Amino acid sequence: MYTILRPNAEAAAQAAARQQVLTKPAGALGRLEALSVRLAAMAGRMDWLPNRRACLVFAGDHGIARQGVSAYPQEVTQQMVLNFLGGGAAVNVLARQMGARLVVVDAGVVGDLAPAPGLVIGKVARGTADLSQAAAMTAAEAEAAFALGADVMQVQIAEGLDILAVGEMGIGNTTSASAIVAAITGRPAAEVTGRGTGLDDAGRLRKVALVEQALALHAPCAVETLRKVGGFEIGAMAGAMTAAAAARIPVVIDGFISTAAALIAVQQNEGVRDYLVASHRSVEPGHRAALEWLGLEPLLDLDLRLGEGTGALLAMPVIEAAMRTLQEMATFASAGVSDRAD
Amino acid sequence: MYTILRPNAEAAAQAAARQQVLTKPAGALGRLEALSVRLAAMAGRMDWLPNRRACLVFAGDHGIARQGVSAYPQEVTQQMVLNFLGGGAAVNVLARQMGARLVVVDAGVVGDLAPAPGLVIGKVARGTADLSQAAAMTAAEAEAAFALGADVMQVQIAEGLDILAVGEMGIGNTTSASAIVAAITGRPAAEVTGRGTGLDDAGRLRKVALVEQALALHAPCAVETLRKVGGFEIGAMAGAMTAAAAARIPVVIDGFISTAAALIAVQQNEGVRDYLVASHRSVEPGHRAALEWLGLEPLLDLDLRLGEGTGALLAMPVIEAAMRTLQEMATFASAGVSDRAD
Repeated sequence: MYTILRPNAEAAAQAAARQQVLTKPAGALGRLEALSVRLAAMAGRMDWLPNRRACLVFAGDHGIARQGVSAYPQEVTQQMVLNFLGGGAAVNVLARQMGARLVVVDAGVVGDLAPAPGLVIGKVARGTADLSQAAAMTAAEAEAAFALGADVMQVQIAEGLDILAVGEMGIGNTTSASAIVAAITGRPAAEVTGRGTGLDDAGRLRKVALVEQALALHAPCAVETLRKVGGFEIGAMAGAMTAAAAARIPVVIDGFISTAAALIAVQQNEGVRDYLVASHRSVEPGHRAALEWLGLEPLLDLDLRLGEGTGALLAMPVIEAAMRTLQEMATFASAGVSDRAD
Repeated sequence: MYTILRPNAEAAAQAAARQQVLTKPAGALGRLEALSVRLAAMAGRMDWLPNRRACLVFAGDHGIARQGVSAYPQEVTQQMVLNFLGGGAAVNVLARQMGARLVVVDAGVVGDLAPAPGLVIGKVARGTADLSQAAAMTAAEAEAAFALGADVMQVQIAEGLDILAVGEMGIGNTTSASAIVAAITGRPAAEVTGRGTGLDDAGRLRKVALVEQALALHAPCAVETLRKVGGFEIGAMAGAMTAAAAARIPVVIDGFISTAAALIAVQQNEGVRDYLVASHRSVEPGHRAALEWLGLEPLLDLDLRLGEGTGALLAMPVIEAAMRTLQEMATFASAGVSDRAD
């Protein structure tokens, strides 16, 4: 469906060579150096900068929310979408600070949302089915969710975009993400299921049991993970990531749920992996397993567990710094600085 | 000498209370939340922002450089100062990106530096003595170095400053920093001495032996650490940090050497500690011991080992984000979002 090119090896080699002659000990910029090489390869050129930024926030409701897996009631999904549109959520603050345009996508919120600037109403359905009892969605819905994200992304590409941050909102969606990560990585439910919005010990144990029940019920084979235990916003995120990778646009993944969506995207199209940048490591225990499966080391580790795209936005200055140091620093020769003797 | 007020407990309490009612699960912004509380307390008000930023880069030469403790020759200190003035170093790139004014201070470079915009020529002497053979400086020089940093800081305060980043340049100064950190924390030289600009195993072992020799020679008692094993740029950094703390200006420390200077500042005036923000954890093994002694957890961990102030500047957006989320997010009540049931 989507053809994803390999990152450009020549741009990577150019960037790596330049890192060796900039006025610093080789390697002294640590992870910024490898990051600059990866980003140059994704963009296919060393002079790429993450100037035009978008943060897509996909919202959807989950049938599993009825099982009490969140500290908050289901209507908070809709209320938070209104908060996004009003500019009062953490992701709004950080999008403003980082100069990213924010687009909110209703991929399947239960309640009605009135048309508003910055909102794409793409309801696949009014919430998924309870994944502990039945498949979360039909095959047609899974396809529609994926296509929604890809379509939203095409509009962003047409508007001009250098980098994409992918976030979400959905009461109950850490349960779905835990089931996805367990299914794809093969880790046990107890290892990849956390407290979400703030469950106590008993609440977390109930959540683990529900994830185990879902895995036993569905035995989700690889390609059907999204349909059986996913969510509409998660499918849409996977679609947006895939479309971005196909356009050679670096994708900054956010927390646990965004990363679960990346697992689905990579499972469907291995090429997506090369265009992913991991922004941060969440408090959610399953995030570590998911990032390991992707082979990505996150840039930040700030004990965040909010989602929305907040961690992805926080990583933007590090990404920009990696490219700016590569591009703007003087070389030993140009600055007349003595290189090391050996 | 400097009276340093305790951070404002009332502002801290206000910030902590507000974090509980913002539209996110309590604690979901992780370390940003505690950081916002600390910064509000330092500034004495919740509406503080790190708008006016300065990065002070102190440069000095070290007699120990003659012992081959760096992969680079001593003249690189002077050459890198010229690179700073020409805008081509990593710290220049990041100061531009982060909107910080950059001031370079010659605290004791061996070679002559011509007057230039953005350069303060405050040579305490032309490099320190070899700390493995003798005290690095006289008592008068130690005082002069500290005063230089404090004086430079007064000018910055007069120009208007909200936050200070403190970096350095000095061939051989990781050896001095290792000796300082060993002396103050009591850790063995081998544990706090690393590869600096890129020593091989044999080079590092020679460096460890020199640090051990220095510690045996001087048995530096607390208050004399700077004089016996320090550097002019390190003393000046300690002075700048102290003056900033006295003015209630948050001080973002950088890597290993900047943190060694913080140890000296805190050793002389315990009140400085409350105004320090640790930006990143360096590859230098002694950095961990130094940060533990200070009781600080760094915000970033990107395998940097460049100094100059680069890590401190990279942390600026995280610091800004901590305050902006505190200030700009909606509350559950104002946004009409349901709070958790309990």
